[in-house]
Parts: sequence; structure tokens; C-alpha cells
Amino acid sequence: MDIVLIGAGNLATRLGLRLKECNHRIVQVYSRTEKSARELADKLKTEWTTRVDEVSPEGQLYLVSVSDKAVEPLLCKIGFGKRLVAHTAGSMPLDVLQPFTDNFGVFYPLQTFSKSRAVDFSQIPVCIEANNPENLAILRKLGASISNDVREIGSEQRRQLHLSAVFVCNFVNHLYTIGEELLKEKEIDFDVLKPLIIETAAKVLEFSPKDAQTGPAVRFDRNVIDRHLEMLEEHPQWNDIYKLLSESIHQLHTK
Amino acid sequence: MDIVLIGAGNLATRLGLRLKECNHRIVQVYSRTEKSARELADKLKTEWTTRVDEVSPEGQLYLVSVSDKAVEPLLCKIGFGKRLVAHTAGSMPLDVLQPFTDNFGVFYPLQTFSKSRAVDFSQIPVCIEANNPENLAILRKLGASISNDVREIGSEQRRQLHLSAVFVCNFVNHLYTIGEELLKEKEIDFDVLKPLIIETAAKVLEFSPKDAQTGPAVRFDRNVIDRHLEMLEEHPQWNDIYKLLSESIHQLHTK
Repeated sequence: MDIVLIGAGNLATRLGLRLKECNHRIVQVYSRTEKSARELADKLKTEWTTRVDEVSPEGQLYLVSVSDKAVEPLLCKIGFGKRLVAHTAGSMPLDVLQPFTDNFGVFYPLQTFSKSRAVDFSQIPVCIEANNPENLAILRKLGASISNDVREIGSEQRRQLHLSAVFVCNFVNHLYTIGEELLKEKEIDFDVLKPLIIETAAKVLEFSPKDAQTGPAVRFDRNVIDRHLEMLEEHPQWNDIYKLLSESIHQLHTK
Repeated sequence: MDIVLIGAGNLATRLGLRLKECNHRIVQVYSRTEKSARELADKLKTEWTTRVDEVSPEGQLYLVSVSDKAVEPLLCKIGFGKRLVAHTAGSMPLDVLQPFTDNFGVFYPLQTFSKSRAVDFSQIPVCIEANNPENLAILRKLGASISNDVREIGSEQRRQLHLSAVFVCNFVNHLYTIGEELLKEKEIDFDVLKPLIIETAAKVLEFSPKDAQTGPAVRFDRNVIDRHLEMLEEHPQWNDIYKLLSESIHQLHTK
């Protein structure tokens, strides 16, 4: 397919590279800032623009990967005619695109992306939705060309999926960060935690996380918990996080 | 070495199996309950007891893997003489063992264990400490026989390590559980999150978690955050967790 990328962030970068690798043509990259437009266009060996009035009319599909609040003010300045536009966000419903074209959909790859880190795209669930069966078929075909896991997911389910993803990815990564910061204070290398981090994740491929729960909170070992809270006295926010998560674990496991 | 296992929980089970695999002799398993003593002894093809006065005198090393609060009341009933006793806990200092023998140490494998799940023990950091260089050498040799990663770690550092481990393992697993529960409500299979969970963990092998942070909280995308908090209205505790973790992420990334 001939595709125009609207946005040049982490997701647009990894998705663009994968599309190109799978023999789609990236016609153009639009981004608000020259730096990111140029950077991604260079990687994709294609054109770029920062001007809404210069967005190419040659796309068969416009993939919109910008922050939720930027979508409306940006898209209303681009003339899509009746061309197919899809956003790539977990959090936005399908119909945010209705004002801008007759043909629209969602193409949401459920993964965490960084510009500089390659991921195995073939395993990524691509969640699709569209305003009619024809557009859905187009997005399904596109999805199948880059991943083995394409799923039709409606806006309400996708929204819940995105909320869950915030817990299991963004919040989890923040707990890794707290772990790292705590170790730094005692000059311990973060490397020592890596086998534990990998095993904790790998375990839920086999068990439901509810059954995999271990540690002082599930036993509600008051001794350990109180000592830990004491150790966190100089980090009131982490102390609160510790308390809240321990209570939540305990409640879930005594229900 | 000839080893007596005091305790037959998750850690004792996986450690016992690994020790046997590496040609150590498990002399006996002690546990408070017959069921778990027998179960582990069967796996290790050895003797078991639930009576403190029947703990074998034949061990060269007694490995104590019971909950923190059980250590003192249990060990004061067993006559160790001058034999070497080591506990396997991250949270307890070395000197809790001082009252019970002249030779004592810590042998703490930093990992999450389940009875029924095998782990690659060769990669697990084994943190050792002892009351004198001779005992430390014994534990170092034992550690090296089951893992490629043996580290001498003092009680204060180990305590911090254990606190960090609670964040990156126990609390992380609870966030996985919340993710799974949220999906259940909309009848979405947890499988869809697995590539994301694995990638989130794998990413911190390469990047510091602080640099790997993505999602609405780090951008402090008020639109998305408010919508998510609304979706969590019926789960006040998860709502609190969402709020607290989002604020903590935002603060860390604007410092």
C-alpha cells in the first residue's frame, strides 16, 4: 500500500520501518517538528513535510500517530477528501475520525515502542476497527502483512485494553525504575535484578498472575512489611505506593 | 555437601531440586506440616520429619527457608551444636542466626520461585554472607556449584535488594493481575497482553527503566489520564493506584 505517516514518534517510527520492510511504500512523513519529520523520513528513505497544506494527496492510507489531544486540531487542517484515514491509538474511539473523511478506521499495534529498539513485529497483536466492512478488510490485509496476530476489537474493548496496558507496561516500568533508584542508593548494580524481572514476566506466560503472586504482601507478613515501610520513610511517595499495593494484594488474595 | 533443608516452601523446593541436580546430598527435609515435608522429600528421594527433635545431626549445612517470623521460635528448638546454619531470606540480617550456632551465614538466591515451575538456576544471583571467612568460602563454593553468579552482599545491601525485589517482582505481578482482571470484565483474553509484558521486561535489559518510560503519565496527558480514572470509578483501590503511580512517574520525569 501507499501510506502517508502523520506523526513521527516512537510508534510511527517502528511501524513505518516495519511497513517498509514488508514492502509497503511510505509516500511521506508529516510531523510538526522538522527534526523528527526529517529523522524518520531519512530512515524510510522518503519525503517529509511539516506543513499541513503539503501533506501528499497520494496516500491510499493515512496513518495518524499523534497524541490524542493533537488529533482534532491537526486533522481539521488536512484535506483528506474521501481517502482512508486510520489512527493508531488505544485510547481513542473510532468515531473521532468521522469529521474528517468518509473512510476511517483504527490500526492499533499493542506494544511499547522506542525509536531505537527493534521489536519482533510478527508477534504484536494489531487491533483493527473500521467504519465499514471494506475498510476493515483493507486494514486486516495490511495488519496480516506485518503481524501474525490481527484482531478486530471495538472501541470500548480497545479502551479497556489500553487501560490494562498502562498497568502492565507503563506502571510496571515505573516500578522497575523505583527498584533501580533504591539500588543506586546503596551502590548496587541494577543488573542483579534482571533475572528476577525476566522470570516475573515469563511466569505469567504459564500461570495466571493471580496464581503466580508471591512475596510478603500475599502472606501479609507484618514484620517484613513494617520494616520495608520504615526503609522508605525518606521516600513518602514510594512509601504510599508500597502501602497501597500491599493492601491491594492482600485484599485480592483474601477475597 | 550433605544438606538438611529446614522448610519446604517454594524456595526450598526449587533450591533443593537444584542442589540435588548438582550432586549434593539432601539428607533430610524438615517442615512443620507433614504434607509439604513429604512432598518435597519425595521429589528429592530423601527422608523427612515434622519433629524438631528428629532433625538429622548429619548435615554439614542446614539451609533455613521458613518465614521470617518462624525462624527464631523454630531454631531455638533445634540443637545445631556448632554446625553451619544459613538462612535463605533477603529480608533478615545475618545475625538473627547468632543465638543458635557458632557457624552461620546467608545463602539468598534472588529469584521468584514456584514449586511447579523450573527456572534456569545458573543465571540466578546467589547472595552470600557469613560470620567468618571459612564459612563464607563454604557458601561461595556451594553457590558456584549451582549458579554462575555468586555475590558477597552484606545484610544492609541485601535488605535493600529485597525491598527492590518486592517492587520489581511482587508489585509488578500485582499490576499484571489488575490488567488481567480489567480484561476479564470486557471478556478479553489475557493472552493479548503477553507480548507487551515480555517486551516491557526485555527492554530494561538494554535501557535503564527511567529512559524506557512511555505512556500517558510521562507525557502527563490529562485527557487520557482523566478518562482512565473515570473507567476505574468502580475500583476505588485501582483508581488510587493509577493516580499515585501516574503522579510518581510525572514527578520523576520532571525533576
